[in-house]
Amino acid sequence: MTTVSRILEPEWIATATREAPLLDRHSVAIAGDRIAAIGPRAQIRARHPDIEPVALAGHLLIPGLVNLHTHAAMSLLRGIGDDLSLHRWLQERIWPTEGKLVSPSFVYDGSLLACREMLLGGITCFNDMYFYPEETARAAALLGMRARVGIIVIDFPSAYGTGPEDYLRKGLALRDRHLDDPLIGFCLAPHAPYTVGDDAFRRVATIASELAMPVHVHVHETAEEVSQSLAQHGRRPLQRLCDLGLLGPEVIAVHAVCLDEHDLALMQAHNVSVAHCPHSNLKLASGIAPIARMLDAGLNIGIGTDGSASNNRLDLIDEARTAALLAKGASGRADLWPAAEVLEAMTIGGARALGMEKQIGSIEAGKQADLVAIDMNATELRPVFDPISQFVFAGGREHVADVWVAGKHVVHKRQLLDSASSGKLAEVVSRIGVWQNRIDEILSS
Amino acid sequence: MTTVSRILEPEWIATATREAPLLDRHSVAIAGDRIAAIGPRAQIRARHPDIEPVALAGHLLIPGLVNLHTHAAMSLLRGIGDDLSLHRWLQERIWPTEGKLVSPSFVYDGSLLACREMLLGGITCFNDMYFYPEETARAAALLGMRARVGIIVIDFPSAYGTGPEDYLRKGLALRDRHLDDPLIGFCLAPHAPYTVGDDAFRRVATIASELAMPVHVHVHETAEEVSQSLAQHGRRPLQRLCDLGLLGPEVIAVHAVCLDEHDLALMQAHNVSVAHCPHSNLKLASGIAPIARMLDAGLNIGIGTDGSASNNRLDLIDEARTAALLAKGASGRADLWPAAEVLEAMTIGGARALGMEKQIGSIEAGKQADLVAIDMNATELRPVFDPISQFVFAGGREHVADVWVAGKHVVHKRQLLDSASSGKLAEVVSRIGVWQNRIDEILSS
Repeated sequence: MTTVSRILEPEWIATATREAPLLDRHSVAIAGDRIAAIGPRAQIRARHPDIEPVALAGHLLIPGLVNLHTHAAMSLLRGIGDDLSLHRWLQERIWPTEGKLVSPSFVYDGSLLACREMLLGGITCFNDMYFYPEETARAAALLGMRARVGIIVIDFPSAYGTGPEDYLRKGLALRDRHLDDPLIGFCLAPHAPYTVGDDAFRRVATIASELAMPVHVHVHETAEEVSQSLAQHGRRPLQRLCDLGLLGPEVIAVHAVCLDEHDLALMQAHNVSVAHCPHSNLKLASGIAPIARMLDAGLNIGIGTDGSASNNRLDLIDEARTAALLAKGASGRADLWPAAEVLEAMTIGGARALGMEKQIGSIEAGKQADLVAIDMNATELRPVFDPISQFVFAGGREHVADVWVAGKHVVHKRQLLDSASSGKLAEVVSRIGVWQNRIDEILSS
Repeated sequence: MTTVSRILEPEWIATATREAPLLDRHSVAIAGDRIAAIGPRAQIRARHPDIEPVALAGHLLIPGLVNLHTHAAMSLLRGIGDDLSLHRWLQERIWPTEGKLVSPSFVYDGSLLACREMLLGGITCFNDMYFYPEETARAAALLGMRARVGIIVIDFPSAYGTGPEDYLRKGLALRDRHLDDPLIGFCLAPHAPYTVGDDAFRRVATIASELAMPVHVHVHETAEEVSQSLAQHGRRPLQRLCDLGLLGPEVIAVHAVCLDEHDLALMQAHNVSVAHCPHSNLKLASGIAPIARMLDAGLNIGIGTDGSASNNRLDLIDEARTAALLAKGASGRADLWPAAEVLEAMTIGGARALGMEKQIGSIEAGKQADLVAIDMNATELRPVFDPISQFVFAGGREHVADVWVAGKHVVHKRQLLDSASSGKLAEVVSRIGVWQNRIDEILSS
């Protein structure tokens, strides 16, 4: 058994558990990559008299945030298609640009920039969907982040692959190479009902079942998607996925904006999780997901930023605040989704969706030490009447002071710690201008 | 004529004018409290060879932000009533606490903390409504901010006054003492249709007309307010204000969430401005203001944070992003309210509502030098395809680097500059714990 090497002494701990959501003047003992114990300060100190605790006066310790849906590589495309609908955004800006640009280096550079932004904002694990997933995995690994990298499946060819079989073959081979990786795992990522055919969905369902992998799919994002499915398949997209044998607790329904009662019942019956991405849904005018109905149905909900080309911040704290406020405003129920439950969606809800709820998502003994210290000493956060509510409704990523992933201290005083990775990151930053020139050329041609 | 004393050389200038919304590699020359000239860098340098320009490489210069509705003093009450509806929030948390707590020192301390938060977030002018307005004026003056301080009118007595006549008498006397104040001005602030009687509204209308003052009133915030007015007055609130002679271009309708076609037509006919406060409206489950209809009707719209007890951030950049996204999502029109127009709402829209559009709200020669430099060098803001869109959709108050009010440099490198005020601010910060104890006692009694 690994011995305790570090003790954190925050002012408060938001555990993201129902039993004891908020602990006051407790400490967390870390052994290797795990949380060894949580207990009253004096008790933890007495057990480990030789360890000098890390003082986090006035800080709120929360579980590492889980970004349940993003396309990290797209950070290089941030802002190329603002103020456009999903259809025009995809057809006129994103797909033409991606068609000419997507390459291993584009994915690596964009993903590394996204990982930097996410980690500094308290995100310790993200669920991704994009081409060249090996490059996104490499970027996450460089910064010491946890990731579930999507094995993309889409009917059209790209520079990365020729079609569904090729995408699956490459993705599964990549997964094999990472089987013992403590930080990088994989999910199946069929793009969407309007870009993936029945055969490919059936293959995904089979593999998901055989390998017990999560399935990450955009679904019911727009009314257009639903009507197109009705016209083409005679069924709404969720019913079609159900008929293809795909629905189950391993499915993460990304967006899930346009839902009727039958759709909600299907999701409930199959215990599907939701990746709620309110900024993207609003920005592309897709609509407002029926969070009140989902909560009433007992669905598991996580929060996603989506890619930075449609959001445009990879900021889960900002995203979750909007989610919380929007749920109240759209339902007319001010008491809906109180702050402590929103914090659950940002952490254990995302972890559960990814099948990782035994490893991450809450601060409990035995779990991975993925931890974020929020500096509640900031004058604009004082006085503090309820630390969790203050964090959710008034906090921001500017208050993320320290981050640990698997017990490793990766952010301190709002800066990345690892000097080895910082050199490589600086190289990528120096290339941003080159990418911008190439994108400008494509957009003006 | 004052001579030019400072030249700013940002990468871009977002002017908040329709003629030239974005200027590239232009400079701003400041003389005293005013913008003396704007022109291409070389031209401005040639005109003033003796002045060393302030280099703002990679920065976007924007007009100082105008927070069109807040209750600055309430920052001490932030978080005491989260996850409650407006009615319960007011009746169970805010009014009982205020009843026991409101005093000159409560208003001064709370307002000073709010001014600090606003100024560091790029807000150079705010429109306020609260008791003891002289204390809010004093707080704003200490930090060198511009403010329009509300002369509150409310039918019930408070520690500050006995009723409408007393509130008006005290407020107008305060106004007289500030007639020559370059930064502090006043507006009439009848609280709301459900807390102000017909006589008081008539008095407000008369004074507003005689003294040419803006009128700042919560109106049509909730469905309950509208139905109560129908029951009590046989008319919807806006119609009642109209019948009392109050509607006109000097009126700032705060919230304006629950509007029918007739309400919108009234606002359009009388050229009423809107103070849109989406976070507060969502958080208290009041609803979503019909921004698309307001824009179609050509109404002037500004953005307000509301007080930090109902928001809970005095962050106009975050507020405006939500406003922009929500307008698209709620209307189904992704092209509605593009970023440049949202920036106008944050600046010249607010200025126009306050009757200050000739002094502030845009970057034009002759106007007051209220300016904010946004640091777009931040890695998470690169590449930059459209600086205004990048600021609105991806920027945050963490990117506010420098702020000038009336030509005075008040924020540099994210820190308040004035050492004289910083001592007084530190005293107030040291008292936050005392306030917290008193509020805890009241809430637990």
